[in-house]
Amino acid sequence: MTLTNTHKAAVLYGAQDLRIEQRVTCPPEDYQVQLRVRATGICGTDQHYFQNARNGIYVVEEPLILGHEAAGEISAIGKKVTEFKIGDRVVVEPQRPCEKCIVCRSGRYNLCADMKFSGSASSAPPVQGSLQEFYNHAVSFVYKLPDNVTFEEGALVEPLAVAIHAVRRSGVETGQSVLVLGAGAVGLLCAAAAKIAGAASVSIIDIDQGKLDFALGKGVKGGKKVADRAYRIPLSPNKDESRTDFAARIAEEILAQPGFGLEDAVFECTGVDTCMNIAIPCAKRGAKVVMVGLGTPVQNINIGLAGVHEVDLLGIWRYANTFGTAIELLRTGQMDLKPMITHTFDLEKVADALRFTLGRPEDLVKCVITCN
Amino acid sequence: MTLTNTHKAAVLYGAQDLRIEQRVTCPPEDYQVQLRVRATGICGTDQHYFQNARNGIYVVEEPLILGHEAAGEISAIGKKVTEFKIGDRVVVEPQRPCEKCIVCRSGRYNLCADMKFSGSASSAPPVQGSLQEFYNHAVSFVYKLPDNVTFEEGALVEPLAVAIHAVRRSGVETGQSVLVLGAGAVGLLCAAAAKIAGAASVSIIDIDQGKLDFALGKGVKGGKKVADRAYRIPLSPNKDESRTDFAARIAEEILAQPGFGLEDAVFECTGVDTCMNIAIPCAKRGAKVVMVGLGTPVQNINIGLAGVHEVDLLGIWRYANTFGTAIELLRTGQMDLKPMITHTFDLEKVADALRFTLGRPEDLVKCVITCN
Amino acid sequence: MTLTNTHKAAVLYGAQDLRIEQRVTCPPEDYQVQLRVRATGICGTDQHYFQNARNGIYVVEEPLILGHEAAGEISAIGKKVTEFKIGDRVVVEPQRPCEKCIVCRSGRYNLCADMKFSGSASSAPPVQGSLQEFYNHAVSFVYKLPDNVTFEEGALVEPLAVAIHAVRRSGVETGQSVLVLGAGAVGLLCAAAAKIAGAASVSIIDIDQGKLDFALGKGVKGGKKVADRAYRIPLSPNKDESRTDFAARIAEEILAQPGFGLEDAVFECTGVDTCMNIAIPCAKRGAKVVMVGLGTPVQNINIGLAGVHEVDLLGIWRYANTFGTAIELLRTGQMDLKPMITHTFDLEKVADALRFTLGRPEDLVKCVITCN
Amino acid sequence: MTLTNTHKAAVLYGAQDLRIEQRVTCPPEDYQVQLRVRATGICGTDQHYFQNARNGIYVVEEPLILGHEAAGEISAIGKKVTEFKIGDRVVVEPQRPCEKCIVCRSGRYNLCADMKFSGSASSAPPVQGSLQEFYNHAVSFVYKLPDNVTFEEGALVEPLAVAIHAVRRSGVETGQSVLVLGAGAVGLLCAAAAKIAGAASVSIIDIDQGKLDFALGKGVKGGKKVADRAYRIPLSPNKDESRTDFAARIAEEILAQPGFGLEDAVFECTGVDTCMNIAIPCAKRGAKVVMVGLGTPVQNINIGLAGVHEVDLLGIWRYANTFGTAIELLRTGQMDLKPMITHTFDLEKVADALRFTLGRPEDLVKCVITCN
Repeated sequence: MTLTNTHKAAVLYGAQDLRIEQRVTCPPEDYQVQLRVRATGICGTDQHYFQNARNGIYVVEEPLILGHEAAGEISAIGKKVTEFKIGDRVVVEPQRPCEKCIVCRSGRYNLCADMKFSGSASSAPPVQGSLQEFYNHAVSFVYKLPDNVTFEEGALVEPLAVAIHAVRRSGVETGQSVLVLGAGAVGLLCAAAAKIAGAASVSIIDIDQGKLDFALGKGVKGGKKVADRAYRIPLSPNKDESRTDFAARIAEEILAQPGFGLEDAVFECTGVDTCMNIAIPCAKRGAKVVMVGLGTPVQNINIGLAGVHEVDLLGIWRYANTFGTAIELLRTGQMDLKPMITHTFDLEKVADALRFTLGRPEDLVKCVITCN
Repeated sequence: MTLTNTHKAAVLYGAQDLRIEQRVTCPPEDYQVQLRVRATGICGTDQHYFQNARNGIYVVEEPLILGHEAAGEISAIGKKVTEFKIGDRVVVEPQRPCEKCIVCRSGRYNLCADMKFSGSASSAPPVQGSLQEFYNHAVSFVYKLPDNVTFEEGALVEPLAVAIHAVRRSGVETGQSVLVLGAGAVGLLCAAAAKIAGAASVSIIDIDQGKLDFALGKGVKGGKKVADRAYRIPLSPNKDESRTDFAARIAEEILAQPGFGLEDAVFECTGVDTCMNIAIPCAKRGAKVVMVGLGTPVQNINIGLAGVHEVDLLGIWRYANTFGTAIELLRTGQMDLKPMITHTFDLEKVADALRFTLGRPEDLVKCVITCN
Repeated sequence: MTLTNTHKAAVLYGAQDLRIEQRVTCPPEDYQVQLRVRATGICGTDQHYFQNARNGIYVVEEPLILGHEAAGEISAIGKKVTEFKIGDRVVVEPQRPCEKCIVCRSGRYNLCADMKFSGSASSAPPVQGSLQEFYNHAVSFVYKLPDNVTFEEGALVEPLAVAIHAVRRSGVETGQSVLVLGAGAVGLLCAAAAKIAGAASVSIIDIDQGKLDFALGKGVKGGKKVADRAYRIPLSPNKDESRTDFAARIAEEILAQPGFGLEDAVFECTGVDTCMNIAIPCAKRGAKVVMVGLGTPVQNINIGLAGVHEVDLLGIWRYANTFGTAIELLRTGQMDLKPMITHTFDLEKVADALRFTLGRPEDLVKCVITCN
Repeated sequence: MTLTNTHKAAVLYGAQDLRIEQRVTCPPEDYQVQLRVRATGICGTDQHYFQNARNGIYVVEEPLILGHEAAGEISAIGKKVTEFKIGDRVVVEPQRPCEKCIVCRSGRYNLCADMKFSGSASSAPPVQGSLQEFYNHAVSFVYKLPDNVTFEEGALVEPLAVAIHAVRRSGVETGQSVLVLGAGAVGLLCAAAAKIAGAASVSIIDIDQGKLDFALGKGVKGGKKVADRAYRIPLSPNKDESRTDFAARIAEEILAQPGFGLEDAVFECTGVDTCMNIAIPCAKRGAKVVMVGLGTPVQNINIGLAGVHEVDLLGIWRYANTFGTAIELLRTGQMDLKPMITHTFDLEKVADALRFTLGRPEDLVKCVITCN
């Protein structure tokens, strides 16, 4: 067992107070493996924790190691582990549900009330994350990384798992049409996952032309598109325009663009307040709006329109049973995540990376922390 | 063919201007049957039209005969009709979708963009309803009434069809638990339909104790309950309490009542603004909230909570393929609608009936217009 | 902890060689509870093991304690158990899947390739069953028995769980019609579970008039029916009649009986060779035939007819997530299993009980082994 | 209206008695369009009718014009038709269900008991097909052909619609694995449709290496593969080997091939007797076997294995709501049918074409009759 006594970890002590320090390296428990972490993706959750020492209702009460999008090599295995050997390249599903309750047993373990989630203050004590050199995880939530997939891509399996879950919930099928609101990493992944699920038409909107260009393959080597068409919408209402009227107007504008129109599924990936009211009128009767982005909890929603059109409003909470699928898409080359990794930083520079991403630079899709 | 030349009809000319007048009796078209109407139920839609000459976005622009919950006898048949003979007792499904579009062909004809709906200003010209002595309807949307079912009960097949559709959308199954918000006719029917679908526990809330008592079987001859338990909630927030806080407080109160708790499905049958925010926290993770009541279109909704719990928000718009089911429940005695018919008025007294129901008398469940 | 050192157990040594002997009473493991077993139901599996020392492909290679339909009191709890206390009345779900594989995690744990099932030779070494005075079981597959349910009824929760699973797979819903082939305990439970799920019409057939009379409530105190109508079919073809022709003829006979006809779901609960070919032509287009009975594995099936009518042929293998539902039906009184318990024997008389049931007495529905 | 008085038609008078003769050209009815037929695909049904003057239970009792896979130009329109104009390029969905029954209204119109199907003796009088120069069809079952799709490809929309229906029934989704039995046109289309629906792995077997090579893209210009791997199985059992044992042996052989293994869905596209018993053991627990091929109606099936693994056996009967999807796949280029059109014959040579295809030449995938 290659154990070092201590290792480097990026520990959040409070808002914008993230320190690199040495932590004791614990051996894995019986049913755990230890990872030599190689890559960890940075996402909105990490940004919220870094900026405010909280994420929604969850507050950082004691030092927290962030990081829940992790790939690495097995560096040690617990006594009862037979599935892996040292040196195996793996990714981590950062959830550990109870596996006993009716929710777990009926296949929706992501909704388990007893969930432990890595790099999050959502359970107490918090579960430490993967922004450190060594990290232990329950073996049954660790997956082999295919040889053709890099660690950096492996770090993107988690957000891809989110997108696959969203697409599954949407019921998108062969030949259908899709609209994605928000061309950030998760929006792009939803678009791509919908295409893989057979969608014949994928449209995307955002307030940022750079992100839309990325979606259209401009600026991507090889120029592979994840969306068939893109439309830039304004950030805010005209003065004297209510947010509801703004949403209605933008929806009409979108519907009038060539190739756009009523869609079989709409993925709302921004969490921005008016966007649900853009999404609903862009959905066909009987279609689904999947609420992928988390934003203001209480929003002014046109449920009247959703109701009379039987447009289902479906939230998603992480994912269940999608890691295997995500990895399979990478193994077979159905999906290529490399172009999405636009920025990498070394573990020692996590704070810089977080500050950088919080600046929302135009060419950023996904930032990955590496650790070699 | 028993045709009279003219017949009595209740025609709405404007807000609260409803006149009984003679109308020419037209023979049925080739694929129509003519009904000697015997009973027509009055519902919220009729009340809205009567009071304001409009229902939501639909405005009465020319004289409109209301009525879409109809039962009667066949008095004449079109040339190509073979399914019925004169004298047959029938009920009417007041919808006529195009039957050609993909929405119709995929089984959700209630969402057809080309729908014609009886007694409504929703298509132009409006489709005249059944508050008249004779009424023609497409034969393929007319159903035989079993011998053990009265015309008055037949008039309640339509709201029962709504409830069955709502329960189907909810996916409620054997042994599950249900909460119904609103103990009006549709709420009671949702409760009853959920029970028939196997629900082991049905709870109901309302602001009106009389309605709750009805749900508990008090005041009903024989005392058959449609709900296992009932809870009365206040009409409005405390002063200085926001509507959102009010909803959260009431939800907590409800959850704390004996026998209440998180439910597998919640039926929101009031359309009242705060009720969705009571419904969502009363739903289990992964449960459904079915939006049965139509009220303010744009509402302040806690979609954040719905999202993280994957509580699906599902609208319903009328019904599809539920008339046959509703009639079967009456034929077999699985459902008994008689106790719900609390008031009847003669056709000549439609305006009185509408004024009466608008007064929301405590003992009113369902008012039926008869025509003998 | 109330432990006795040894206790009585009914051990199967070979075909018809079942011995009552003393076994060491083991304390429960950390996550187990120990039951003082009070009642164990006898089913076809137990009969097969007793008669032939095998059940299908599973052979009794070492002494096996049968019994997988168990209810009792908690007599000891493992160190990590917090859910129960000594004296609690409980029932046992005799499955223990791995809870880690994709099948378990996606909600179909009954199909886990690593299943351990009590009282069965299906895993090696075999998992000992509940036909003994004390019995240990994983706490997460033990359920509280409501106060209004006797131990004997508790022993029937397992076959009821089978029926609920079958009905779930069938998709039967409100107002639909059902045919059950075979009026043994499981057939009767399928009929009853279909009714609870909203079926408006339940028909049943068997070769045995006694069983059909039971289904019609004759001979049951209070006379509650589980089926609306029953029809007796002959045991075997006429001479010179092929089994396929026999099945076709019987199907036609059934369809011609008053109240019978094409059904939304058909439950084949006999496992008898010709019965699938009776079931398929009795199903509506687009309906389901659920294969509940296990018999000859390779059967001559009219899949041509099933194909052109898109009649789905759906097997069931035990159950998943139905114990809670079954218990809820008993707690609320939606289902009453007492009339089905037609015979009881003491633990010491298990061999007698098995011999008795193998004789297929006409008045037998369910035989329960008690242990007081 | 460009009407000719008579036109050429290929009329089947009896087994192998197919005559080219002149038929009166009828104008379209009010809700019909008239096609100048340009291309009609030949399929197994046509071959059966040609060879035996029957197809299964349907016997040619009067002269029948075959052809149900048709594309052409609109040459005349009925009085009430507004959707098309003369010259429009279209394909025909050869079904005309009643659109009134509960089966039609619930979205499964392919199962309508009142179906009229073109070029088939299945209704009486038979509905004449498209192997003629002019052909009338109900406008609501005619679809525009996108500009980028040739008439010959248009003629393949029908078999593609079959494959899409099969894949829909299978529930195949992103990242899953599929096995196809039979590499004929429909098998290949199922394989391709499964890929489009997101399948990560598609394996195919056949008795004919030429067909497998086609599936692997060998011999196809550009070499696009529809399957990831292929395996050739023998035509018949060893002597002294039962058909059941043969199937079990072949299934084991298949499972042992590299890349093969238990699959999420299996498409049985041969109709050959032993193939279902190869399909079932190749399916994962909880998977689906879709019975696409029609062969001997009564087959010896291992339903025991299907049962204990809850492997659903699902027939398909034509298609419903898949023409629009099929056309969308061609419009967007998700699917390219050109390589499948391996042979074309002129309308005058239909009999030659049918004889040719009955010879099962190795390089045949799809034969299309053109008419210029």
